[in-house]
Amino acid sequence: MTDLTMQDALSRLSTYWSGRGCLTVQPMNTEVGAGTLNPATALRVLGPEPWRVAYAEPSVRPDDARYGENPNRVQCHTQFQVILKPEPGNAQELYLDSLAALGIDIEAHDIRFVEDNWASPALGAWGLGWEVWLDGLEITQFTYFQQAGGITLDPVSVEITYGMERILMALQNVRHFKDITYAPGVTYGEVFGQAEYEMSRYYLDDADVATNRALLDSYAAEAQRMIDVGLPIPAHSFVLKMSHAFNVLDARGAVSTADRANEFARMRKLSNSVAKLWIASREKAGYPLGIVEPQTLASPYTATTGTTTDSAAPLVFEIGVEELPPHEAQAARERVESALIEQLAAGRLAYGQIQVHATPRRITAIVEDVAARELDHVRIVRGPRVAIAFDSNGAPTAAASGFARSNGVTVDDLQWVTEGGIEHVAIQRTEIGRPAAEALAPMLASIVTDLRSAKNMRWNDPALSFSRPIRWLLVLWGDQIVPVVVSSLTAGRTTRIDRTAAQPVLTIASAADYLPTIADNAIHLDERERRRIIVDNAVKAASTVGGSIDVDGEGSLIDQICFLVEEPTAIVGGFDASYLSLPDAVLTTVMRKHQRYLPIRDASGALLPHFVVMANGRMNTEVVRAGNEAVLRARFEDAAFFHRADLEMSIDSMREHLTRLTFTDQLGSMHDRAFRVAAIAKTLSAQVSGVDVAVLDRAASLVKFDLGSQMVTEMTSLAGVMAREYLVAAGAPQAVAEAVFEAELPRHAGDQLPVSLPGALLALADKLDSLAGLAATVGLPTGSSDPFALRRAALGVIALHRNTTALTQLSLLDALGTAAAQQPVPVAADTVEAVLEFLARRLEQQLLDEGHPVDRVRAVLLHAHRPRYADRILAQLNGLSDRSDFRRLAAALQRARRIVPAGQHPPVSPADLTEPAEQRLHETVVRMRGSLGEAVDLDRLVSASHELPDAVDDFFDALLVMAEDPAVRATRIGLVASVAELGDGVLDWSELRL
Amino acid sequence: MTDLTMQDALSRLSTYWSGRGCLTVQPMNTEVGAGTLNPATALRVLGPEPWRVAYAEPSVRPDDARYGENPNRVQCHTQFQVILKPEPGNAQELYLDSLAALGIDIEAHDIRFVEDNWASPALGAWGLGWEVWLDGLEITQFTYFQQAGGITLDPVSVEITYGMERILMALQNVRHFKDITYAPGVTYGEVFGQAEYEMSRYYLDDADVATNRALLDSYAAEAQRMIDVGLPIPAHSFVLKMSHAFNVLDARGAVSTADRANEFARMRKLSNSVAKLWIASREKAGYPLGIVEPQTLASPYTATTGTTTDSAAPLVFEIGVEELPPHEAQAARERVESALIEQLAAGRLAYGQIQVHATPRRITAIVEDVAARELDHVRIVRGPRVAIAFDSNGAPTAAASGFARSNGVTVDDLQWVTEGGIEHVAIQRTEIGRPAAEALAPMLASIVTDLRSAKNMRWNDPALSFSRPIRWLLVLWGDQIVPVVVSSLTAGRTTRIDRTAAQPVLTIASAADYLPTIADNAIHLDERERRRIIVDNAVKAASTVGGSIDVDGEGSLIDQICFLVEEPTAIVGGFDASYLSLPDAVLTTVMRKHQRYLPIRDASGALLPHFVVMANGRMNTEVVRAGNEAVLRARFEDAAFFHRADLEMSIDSMREHLTRLTFTDQLGSMHDRAFRVAAIAKTLSAQVSGVDVAVLDRAASLVKFDLGSQMVTEMTSLAGVMAREYLVAAGAPQAVAEAVFEAELPRHAGDQLPVSLPGALLALADKLDSLAGLAATVGLPTGSSDPFALRRAALGVIALHRNTTALTQLSLLDALGTAAAQQPVPVAADTVEAVLEFLARRLEQQLLDEGHPVDRVRAVLLHAHRPRYADRILAQLNGLSDRSDFRRLAAALQRARRIVPAGQHPPVSPADLTEPAEQRLHETVVRMRGSLGEAVDLDRLVSASHELPDAVDDFFDALLVMAEDPAVRATRIGLVASVAELGDGVLDWSELRL
Repeated sequence: MTDLTMQDALSRLSTYWSGRGCLTVQPMNTEVGAGTLNPATALRVLGPEPWRVAYAEPSVRPDDARYGENPNRVQCHTQFQVILKPEPGNAQELYLDSLAALGIDIEAHDIRFVEDNWASPALGAWGLGWEVWLDGLEITQFTYFQQAGGITLDPVSVEITYGMERILMALQNVRHFKDITYAPGVTYGEVFGQAEYEMSRYYLDDADVATNRALLDSYAAEAQRMIDVGLPIPAHSFVLKMSHAFNVLDARGAVSTADRANEFARMRKLSNSVAKLWIASREKAGYPLGIVEPQTLASPYTATTGTTTDSAAPLVFEIGVEELPPHEAQAARERVESALIEQLAAGRLAYGQIQVHATPRRITAIVEDVAARELDHVRIVRGPRVAIAFDSNGAPTAAASGFARSNGVTVDDLQWVTEGGIEHVAIQRTEIGRPAAEALAPMLASIVTDLRSAKNMRWNDPALSFSRPIRWLLVLWGDQIVPVVVSSLTAGRTTRIDRTAAQPVLTIASAADYLPTIADNAIHLDERERRRIIVDNAVKAASTVGGSIDVDGEGSLIDQICFLVEEPTAIVGGFDASYLSLPDAVLTTVMRKHQRYLPIRDASGALLPHFVVMANGRMNTEVVRAGNEAVLRARFEDAAFFHRADLEMSIDSMREHLTRLTFTDQLGSMHDRAFRVAAIAKTLSAQVSGVDVAVLDRAASLVKFDLGSQMVTEMTSLAGVMAREYLVAAGAPQAVAEAVFEAELPRHAGDQLPVSLPGALLALADKLDSLAGLAATVGLPTGSSDPFALRRAALGVIALHRNTTALTQLSLLDALGTAAAQQPVPVAADTVEAVLEFLARRLEQQLLDEGHPVDRVRAVLLHAHRPRYADRILAQLNGLSDRSDFRRLAAALQRARRIVPAGQHPPVSPADLTEPAEQRLHETVVRMRGSLGEAVDLDRLVSASHELPDAVDDFFDALLVMAEDPAVRATRIGLVASVAELGDGVLDWSELRL
Repeated sequence: MTDLTMQDALSRLSTYWSGRGCLTVQPMNTEVGAGTLNPATALRVLGPEPWRVAYAEPSVRPDDARYGENPNRVQCHTQFQVILKPEPGNAQELYLDSLAALGIDIEAHDIRFVEDNWASPALGAWGLGWEVWLDGLEITQFTYFQQAGGITLDPVSVEITYGMERILMALQNVRHFKDITYAPGVTYGEVFGQAEYEMSRYYLDDADVATNRALLDSYAAEAQRMIDVGLPIPAHSFVLKMSHAFNVLDARGAVSTADRANEFARMRKLSNSVAKLWIASREKAGYPLGIVEPQTLASPYTATTGTTTDSAAPLVFEIGVEELPPHEAQAARERVESALIEQLAAGRLAYGQIQVHATPRRITAIVEDVAARELDHVRIVRGPRVAIAFDSNGAPTAAASGFARSNGVTVDDLQWVTEGGIEHVAIQRTEIGRPAAEALAPMLASIVTDLRSAKNMRWNDPALSFSRPIRWLLVLWGDQIVPVVVSSLTAGRTTRIDRTAAQPVLTIASAADYLPTIADNAIHLDERERRRIIVDNAVKAASTVGGSIDVDGEGSLIDQICFLVEEPTAIVGGFDASYLSLPDAVLTTVMRKHQRYLPIRDASGALLPHFVVMANGRMNTEVVRAGNEAVLRARFEDAAFFHRADLEMSIDSMREHLTRLTFTDQLGSMHDRAFRVAAIAKTLSAQVSGVDVAVLDRAASLVKFDLGSQMVTEMTSLAGVMAREYLVAAGAPQAVAEAVFEAELPRHAGDQLPVSLPGALLALADKLDSLAGLAATVGLPTGSSDPFALRRAALGVIALHRNTTALTQLSLLDALGTAAAQQPVPVAADTVEAVLEFLARRLEQQLLDEGHPVDRVRAVLLHAHRPRYADRILAQLNGLSDRSDFRRLAAALQRARRIVPAGQHPPVSPADLTEPAEQRLHETVVRMRGSLGEAVDLDRLVSASHELPDAVDDFFDALLVMAEDPAVRATRIGLVASVAELGDGVLDWSELRL
């Protein structure tokens, strides 16, 4: 496709960026995992000095070592790294130009900025940004750097990291990295192949663990020593060496769970010290490179343009952004909509229909018929009391004249108003409504200022903060610009479309022209319409190859796609049918999750060797199709490689690999966890009937083994699926394979649930282990953060219990106790109870979400430890709730409970019962108690209760419980308590609203 | 001078070399001291695969760390490294083009290839080549790589290493590295200044010694482990890490003498294993990059060109070479001359005068009047004896006819010849002389084939080996090419001149045109004439600034210059007069030794702020002058920097620094050595009268301290000179300063000698310490290798003794014993005697060189342990040698000695003396012995001997020593012995030829 060699590509990028004011420097002379670690990035992004740099960085990732055998994976790949500090406001455009400089026809390709946030917890660094996709291939990481060394960055830098091998493989259309033409007549494999093999050997097999551990400690000591003497540059160099030594140990599987946390903490702490020292050193040196000028604030408007009119006119309010993550675009749309409605409603400007839409690059509100002026407003200014304002002669006092003077009126202008029954003097002021533009400007400005997302970033703006940079504001009322000024932004009449369009910036004459202009440029602003078009086009496209899309099944993917494009173009691509021999889940995971492609299936539901990609903007569809096909081929090739590699390994050796995977520091490896899950499931099985113990035992010994496979390492969402695949391939019984698969269920809300009991037990044990262990160590989630997905685990527990008949009587409190007993850390009883409460809250919410009345839900929550049982009682309750016998029973029980608080059981001696009503009630209670037996549920309670309401009514009608004789009173209270007791443990009667 | 930035310069070189088929790769991702260590060089030069690569390499030299303060010295400099494998035959031309690509006007500058051989003993690597000088500035190292990892390279690679900071400082005309424009608007200092400071701090002050030692060992272990598993690439990486850790330790002054040797040996061994593994791995891989085609041998000539003539014509035989080292050019001239004379003399071609000349780039022989053909030659082929060839009838036998037939003649053609008195049949053959070209070709070919130098290299030629590559042969006899074919070379009629000339290759029509053409191109072929021109022009140039050159004093420098240029142009440059405040020796050392400039002095001998540089070839003299002035300024600035830095240090702290300088592994540090020198000198002083003990003690405590100064570290030849400077500056007494200076004398043959006795004692102690210690550890030199310059030390000892009256009676044997006793190793008595013998041989040679007759020299050599005393006796001997009294005495003593071997002293009892002649002789001997006293020298011996010769003659005339009576015989032998004994210890009488 091109004869650009890799060395020329590096040279062209270097030339391009040095032409844009970047220094070119050399790679770091110690091993680094990424160009970010080079001090030309890691240190220079700190502090107020400007900095622009571009350099190649051989990036060593011992974990990616594959002996040079994997076509797409190398232990040392070449990054080309660019830092622009401060971010210049047009880095995306500069970047696209750099692709053009590589000879990439950027108009022909589908180039997209797809959400990808970057963080290095070990180095206390993070940023927000994107992966850049070239026809579906991730070729670049583009990040607005927010923090480094634990220090918040100001100004913010843009970091652009090109993955050179990826780019060259795509440009040269080769399928193995070794086949890249590195220089004329010389391949990448010829230059680096041997190093790939040998360094892989070192990292994966031969590196000495003790030596590397000693190196790690030596480096750490030297880093600390340099920090102590105030030298950030050598200190940083030693932190990098630590990081590499750690990566070597990790690739060798020699990092224990405790080590990892300790080393990360150690590196983070050192990095923070380095960052502080660097900043101090630059300050001390007087910032030799100068200080970045803060972005100037926009000037206030002096005049607005456009014709003056008294008629109502539409308002267009477009907030232009760099590509928002899909969920953030949706959320922002909602936020703008509600803020706008609220603000308009609170104002005095008449307005018509409001619509707010969002695409990845804009949030646009359109308001019909916005009046030309606000309504005028009469305002009363209250003065002193009349009694004080006028003397007994009715003459104004000094208070009255003072009030009048201070408000610029005469005493004659004062009126009387009554407030709180007291008369005051007052002045009436009529405030003339402002013109629309003037009224709208502060309103819309505040909406922009207040716009926030779940995760916000800073860019080169002194005040704003949002999911991604806000780059422009188009605000037109009729043909007038509404003078919105927010921080460094000034509203105008320009909008932006596809960056590779001939004219990417358009001027809009009038609000009415906005929608037609946007539509003319193939942008589908309305997300609902856009979704419909996407679906229609995808379905149509699939039909061209005789297949269909599972529109419902792919709903959430389509939702996502809908916010990844604003000019959707459906393109059908194909892949070699031979890949269909890979597991369906592998293929669809790759397509959906990695590539956002819609799989195409035939009438029987079988995958066809085709897919739909929804591209964005103008492009050459043939080029984009071919590009996406090549990417998918590489991905499938990768998957096939893992699949083959896994099939060549024994199940045991995969399971053994779990010892090398950390679960958490305190809870040990995944191997430890799998062992616990097995033990918990087996313990629980003793309380459950009908378990095929042989299947459970076998499955328990295998659970989670596939986390040690290459496929699951690469695609964690395939955990369980691959286990089943590999077990079947290895000849394990189907039931065992199925149970090991089911142990991972449910993987998300609405996911399938285990069918087999061994599967259900393992799945339950899996979640209980997480809950018990993590609650005792890191704690239950609070707020929005839930790194270990404990909410999902809780929902899983509930779903498993509710779904499995055999578990109906299994108490989750006991089960949690069992799980707690398996943990390597003590789990307090309080903790177990807190987990149960955590489960109960989720069960409550779930039942409410299912439409059950809140009183009934709360009434059954005493069974939260047996969700399936709670379901049964709730069903009975629902069935009984209109029946009079139930209602009378309930009334009787509630009446009894109001007198005797739950839990009080004063004894009743039959001998003390003197009144017939007493005797009758007592006998009724005894009879009923006798007929209830052991397993009391609501239905049985009701059917056994036919005599009780009458007896209760009689008793209360005939007698006063609170008799004066204390002995009598005690006996009668005891009798009422015995009634109340009948309903114990069935419902929480007090919650019922009858 | 240029607005080329450093980053652009790197980019241009990269572009230039990639255009010449070089790969561009990234620097090594671990610290290296030079681009050579990058596996792209260190490994790729091994084995038969072709390879061309070019890359930048930040090169870390902890020892060069200067906190960023020194204008010319950085801990990390940037090399641009090029490898061409196989060497292409025109690498110098390619290199010059690359300078042009940097925008350097190569025609305007004086660009020279100045001998510089490269070796890394730690890595088992070496090569021959040059520093490239741009107007006197070393900008590039250019090496034909001969060995790496201890493996001889085949094919040979060219390594070109550009020193980027140097080049940029020159091109941008800045005086401090920090002022280099690195990128537009950004200086080198702004980018790297802080790192220079901080890494200097690490390397010089703060690196933890124990940690780095541990790192070194860890790396070594890992390197060995990787070798054991057969992985050269990771092993090499760890060797590089070792090397860096070692350099860090070294810069921290933490390398003990034993460590250094051990570490070098360890690294050398590992490097060798790495190299072997790499070669094996490439062989096993089937040489993926192919195999270099061996250079094809030149085809034999089928015809020669030119007119045919019968007249004699001149022969020109030019061997064209790349720049030879000066001493090799001279030696090659001599070798070619003697080989040619020998070959021509042995041949049958008449020839006239022979002259052979050499310049750096050619060795040319011109032979006048070489005959057109060889003389014809009559050859006798001897057959069987006549007696066998003919029967008794005189008829030819089968033997005769067989002989005739086998020689293609008839029996009638047989002649008779007599050999050893026996007649044989014979055939006379006349061999017709070959044409000149045919006769000359093999002769001259063998001269080229056999050409060797002291240190030879290989290049891309299958058979030749010489000091530098031989690139062309011009061989013309008249207008004919003499068909010389040597390996890959074929003689022609082209010669080459200045590579930057408009037409660098010239065709010579005829031998007669050669000298005029060469002369027309300003090349002075005749080295004597060239030297005369150099001297004349230098003197003339100096006179333009009112100064002169010390033509005699600068003799050896002028000799060197004479072989550094072939088109000399004298240019006067100047420097700032403020530098004249630096010590004269500093200035002249920089000018002579580093720059090969001739210093200019005024009539009083004081330096003027001017110098003469002898440039080569065509150039813009203004540019070259300015360039050389800038270089000298930088050098002087450096020297001034060292001078200032040294003056800021105390003498004590410089002396303390000696503990960090190794003398040898076994003999400890320079501090140890200085201590020994002091102790030896003080011990010897007890045997010498007139020593100012206070001065000696003080000087002894200071001796060699200046080896710890920065100036002497940089310019070792200033040892002693700087000591005197700094002591005077520190206010030490002049006599002490002088003695410390004198301790280093004589520094070379013919150097000045101490005037003061303390100085002489210290100087003597210095040399004796070397001799005793090194003889006992590394041994006395044999062959040409003398790494510790023990021959010079021996000559120094002799010169010191001969020059110092007070030492006349000091026995060097005793003195060596004193020195031996101070050594940290045992020094055997044998060793001391061997050293004395070593001294005696040098004294003998020196005396002979001074023109004394060999017999007299040998006669006084028994005083070799007291050279000055030997001088005295030799002088007496010279004065007496013609006097009859001396001759009679000598004859008497020799006669006595012939009878009684030296060392035998049979006793004589006067009572046994019966004969008068016996009695007279005895009395004469006793009288003479009595008058001789203690301090016998030759003069006293002669003046006391007036009676002896007669008495001796009497004795021998009258009596027979070998009497039959054993008792008589014994007495007489005793008497003769007593005579012989009189001459003992004065001369070795037996050596005298009378």
